[in-house]
Amino acid sequence: MRIDIITVLPELLESPLSHSIMKRAQAKGLLEVHVHPLRQYSTLKHSQVDDYQFGGGAGMVMMLEPIVNAIESLQAKVQYDEIIYLTPDGETLNQKMANQLSLKGNLLMLCGHYKGIDQRIRDHFITKEISIGDYVLSGGELGAAVLVDAIGRLLPGVLNNETSALTDSFQDNLLAPPVYTRPEEFRGWKVPEVLMSGDHKKIEEWRHQESVERTKQRRPDLL
Amino acid sequence: MRIDIITVLPELLESPLSHSIMKRAQAKGLLEVHVHPLRQYSTLKHSQVDDYQFGGGAGMVMMLEPIVNAIESLQAKVQYDEIIYLTPDGETLNQKMANQLSLKGNLLMLCGHYKGIDQRIRDHFITKEISIGDYVLSGGELGAAVLVDAIGRLLPGVLNNETSALTDSFQDNLLAPPVYTRPEEFRGWKVPEVLMSGDHKKIEEWRHQESVERTKQRRPDLL
Repeated sequence: MRIDIITVLPELLESPLSHSIMKRAQAKGLLEVHVHPLRQYSTLKHSQVDDYQFGGGAGMVMMLEPIVNAIESLQAKVQYDEIIYLTPDGETLNQKMANQLSLKGNLLMLCGHYKGIDQRIRDHFITKEISIGDYVLSGGELGAAVLVDAIGRLLPGVLNNETSALTDSFQDNLLAPPVYTRPEEFRGWKVPEVLMSGDHKKIEEWRHQESVERTKQRRPDLL
Repeated sequence: MRIDIITVLPELLESPLSHSIMKRAQAKGLLEVHVHPLRQYSTLKHSQVDDYQFGGGAGMVMMLEPIVNAIESLQAKVQYDEIIYLTPDGETLNQKMANQLSLKGNLLMLCGHYKGIDQRIRDHFITKEISIGDYVLSGGELGAAVLVDAIGRLLPGVLNNETSALTDSFQDNLLAPPVYTRPEEFRGWKVPEVLMSGDHKKIEEWRHQESVERTKQRRPDLL
């Protein structure tokens, strides 16, 4: 999979894309991520990319021309399955959407900043608008980092068996059960006995029961 | 406000915490963020912080002792309003929760990794479990970065007037209206006439109408 990201703050994405599982995915050649500084595509003085909004009001708006230049120059080299705009009023990201996107070949992501991008970009270029949740962030960069991570870890071969995504929360509409590791007792707090029983059938039953119980209590909407 | 973050991957948080609005908030002395490498608190060989899970199964579990050491040594210096665990089965973050957390003084955030943390930490130390959305990430680090950003930008003095958070999506349960900037026409795509009218009352009415319309279409659940 190839992911291109257009942003006014390329430096913000450096560390999230170069560590842990994202690093491994790229090192294994399973994921290619390219970050493109938007200012590079401005033809204006001082590499301007934003301007006051028509009609007045607080906050700058990202201009249409540099973004069109960026998108079209990338499209000349790569055919994208989706051109995604990260925005709080987009469709809310969930695991199902991450699963679907992980099956695509090439994705282009555009990070909003300031008050957002000129609406005409959204009308004429963007094929999918995604929000990572019902809250506002300083820009779309963290949204893009989250999306790349959520998708990237699902690519076949990125996770090894021990960290298989299949037992994660949401993959079966159930929250994951509680987990415990050594020591068996700490300050009088013990690990549930069933987990020490060695009886795999009983352990599986207990875990499923705990998953269902936790989901009922915390997220009845998933059931 | 002071935020402490405990993580096995401190380097992943570097760039998100040191640019843009997070940089400004810290430079202005309005926000202090300290990242604490969990391995530093391990008393085991090779600074071990994870182990196999009791009962068997895929994925490592973060051990209780290093985390208890980290939390208690921080608590000896700072009194926390909340000890937050970032986890996909936590309460879903929204703007209202971000607003509330931005009124606190000191927050401690713990990033999960691998299959999660020993349940006894959750039972005995954590006061709030937060999920940034219904999807699974490689770890809690991006969740912490998102939470710090969502909260940090709400601290008085962090945003200047021009980028006021009050006109953002979600602050009034409405999505933000479309925005436009120069040029007035591009490839035949024009800015809506009302925005060029100079009639502020009409512009406000149009924006409100567009907000309501967009919310109805995209997020009727917010109305």
